[in-house]
Amino acid sequence: MSMAAIRYSHGMSRWAPDARVRLEQAALELYDQHGYDQTTTTQIAKRAGLTQRTFFRHFADKREVLFDGAGRLQDFLVDGVLHAPTHAAPLEAVAVALGTAGAVFPFERELSRQRQRIILANSELQERELIKLTSLSTALADALRQRGVPDRAARLAAEAGIAIFRSAYERWLDELDQDDFGQLIRDSLEELRTITNREDGGNPASPVA
Amino acid sequence: MSMAAIRYSHGMSRWAPDARVRLEQAALELYDQHGYDQTTTTQIAKRAGLTQRTFFRHFADKREVLFDGAGRLQDFLVDGVLHAPTHAAPLEAVAVALGTAGAVFPFERELSRQRQRIILANSELQERELIKLTSLSTALADALRQRGVPDRAARLAAEAGIAIFRSAYERWLDELDQDDFGQLIRDSLEELRTITNREDGGNPASPVA
Repeated sequence: MSMAAIRYSHGMSRWAPDARVRLEQAALELYDQHGYDQTTTTQIAKRAGLTQRTFFRHFADKREVLFDGAGRLQDFLVDGVLHAPTHAAPLEAVAVALGTAGAVFPFERELSRQRQRIILANSELQERELIKLTSLSTALADALRQRGVPDRAARLAAEAGIAIFRSAYERWLDELDQDDFGQLIRDSLEELRTITNREDGGNPASPVA
Repeated sequence: MSMAAIRYSHGMSRWAPDARVRLEQAALELYDQHGYDQTTTTQIAKRAGLTQRTFFRHFADKREVLFDGAGRLQDFLVDGVLHAPTHAAPLEAVAVALGTAGAVFPFERELSRQRQRIILANSELQERELIKLTSLSTALADALRQRGVPDRAARLAAEAGIAIFRSAYERWLDELDQDDFGQLIRDSLEELRTITNREDGGNPASPVA
């Protein structure tokens, strides 16, 4: 069964995947097999059994197939930070939000792994990914400031949040038996606590995690 | 007295600044006043009272004036991580190295502030800066792995280190009475500890920093 079929099986007949999903799947396959630079929107539309006009009804360009979901994810996470429990510390509030991100990941895991390979193979796409993460960091810091967190702490917590997110996301891509993204985020936060606090075990004055 | 003169006063007659420093200063002035995109290497050389040929003896292109120091800084920090005290925890080792970075900052503070303004005004330069920081993060993680830190902890500590570095560096740029970059790094690490550990103060089960 194809990954697209798995995805549709949640709510849609596997025999009627919508055009957008077919285009995404076709694009990822082509980028992965032939290279991102070598692939044209004509080829993507053809592989999806659709017209190029349909492609451009869904995506501004071939790069958007890979990054279109980042804006939705960002809005979702900002909302999560704003609605985290009132007393949560800054990084806790970020972690609570990040822990729910699995619900809006743009692609299911196998397509996400394909997407990751494509991005790692292309420096322009890597730059784009960095920019999206920086934009996410800025948005999370804004949300923390709205919660009353002072500016510097807000920016530091947002960047630490991005570090946690990347670490958890890499595990989610690699460890196929691990389905609970929320747990991966909690693990990463715990790991950050450990590496942040543990000092020389022989020094009794230092805080030990 | 110009900033260049202040810089030269350490070891060189202020009347004989070397060509490289004159080119840097001329470039930063022009980028800041007229915009990075609008400035040519011809104009930089002219403002520095030198030939374009001399410019290209020192820099591959006009962008390198801004980023040339990043490689040296990276080598210096990697060396610092490798030689941090044996028992230092991963993020401690990174912080020890970062705390010494002030010694190899490519520009003194006023020029660094000018450089920051130039970069914030230009998205291409912002991307370049992000890429340099990512490269630094990768290099720091490599150094931690060489110290025997497991891969995931190494990457997380390196990214947390970058977050600390950015926070301290922004303060160094903004707080002109603060000269001790090592102290700024220690402050940032402490701040990260606080935001990482503090949870709801009313929850007795949670670790409170």
